Formats: sequence, C-alpha cells, structure tokens
Amino acid sequence: MIAETPKAPYYAVIFSSTRTSGDNSYNETASLMEELAKKQKGFLGVESARNEIGITVSYWESLEDIQHWKQQVDHAKARAKGESEWYQQFKVRICKVERDYGFEK
Amino acid sequence: MIAETPKAPYYAVIFSSTRTSGDNSYNETASLMEELAKKQKGFLGVESARNEIGITVSYWESLEDIQHWKQQVDHAKARAKGESEWYQQFKVRICKVERDYGFEK
Repeated sequence: MIAETPKAPYYAVIFSSTRTSGDNSYNETASLMEELAKKQKGFLGVESARNEIGITVSYWESLEDIQHWKQQVDHAKARAKGESEWYQQFKVRICKVERDYGFEK
Repeated sequence: MIAETPKAPYYAVIFSSTRTSGDNSYNETASLMEELAKKQKGFLGVESARNEIGITVSYWESLEDIQHWKQQVDHAKARAKGESEWYQQFKVRICKVERDYGFEK
C-alpha cells in the first residue's frame, strides 16, 4: 500500500527495472529483501508495482541509511544475482523528497 | 519503459495511488495526460506501473517545470476528476534526484 512517510525532507530510492524471462527464484528473494529492508536502520516504507516495467520506491531517513542498506551482505548478494539473472535493465535513482501531499477518500 | 534521463541533478514526481472501482474513463484520460505531459517544458520522461497500487514517476528539469505542469489547464481538470472519481487514495512526492546509476544486459 501507499507508504506512510513522515514530514519531508526524507529520502527515496526509485528502482526501475525490466525482468528477464522466467522466475529463477526472483519472487521469493524479492519478498525476503523487502522483509529485510524493513528491519534496517532508517527505513520508512516501500511501494512497489510491476507491469511492463517494475517500479519499487523505498523511503529512508538519510543518505547514510541508503548506503548502509546497499552494503548489507544478503542484499549485496541479491543485487549481484539481479545483474546476472533477473534483470534485463535497471536504473536506480537516489532522491531527496523535498515536499509531499496526499488525498484520501 | 525505463526513462532515459540526463545526468543528475534533475527532479522527479512520485505519484502513488490506489484506484476506486470501475474505469470511469480513467485509462483514456491517463493516456491523454501522459501525451500532454510529454509536450510540456522541462519534461524528461515518465515511468508507470500498477498492481495493487499504481506508481507513476515523471522526471523534470526543474521545480518550476513541475509547478507549471501542475497548473496546466487540462491537467488541473483531470486532477480534480482524480479526487472526485478515480482515486481512493494518493500521495505526491516532489523529489530532487541527486544521483543515479544503471545496468543493461
């Protein structure tokens, strides 16, 4: 669902990807990585959707927290497998969320 | 597909939403708005995916370009209809993309 993030500023990692064919344990690892991300220092939330491309946005308190998550051992292993097996193409964008607003019925 | 954005910094608008039930001309308007966005000053690209939630990220040269697109007349009408008909909930996050990197097979 839509992440309940705190008052800006905070940080976002936009991960946009296209997959190779076949599952190759992708979905299992993606779920594990999401659970692991939630346990990291500074994690604020995550949103994810996929059709032709996949977009996963994770939200963090600081750039240091993002760097720490990138270097987490199991995540680093999964990232290596992402390049060798799961992704045809991806782009990672590190962002500062400067302001936000929302609407709810 | 994944947007081919220029060297950072640039700006991103992350639009995360959940839909009400029924199409109510949503898909037609969404396509029109994407075509219209592409014609705006400062537009750099857009990425979109939807399952349980929808995530659309548009990329822009500057905050002024984002503000200008928000106020564009047809877009403002569509946004009003978004609140009255199409969205159960949404969140808009205005971000500065500080750095990015990618991978392609």
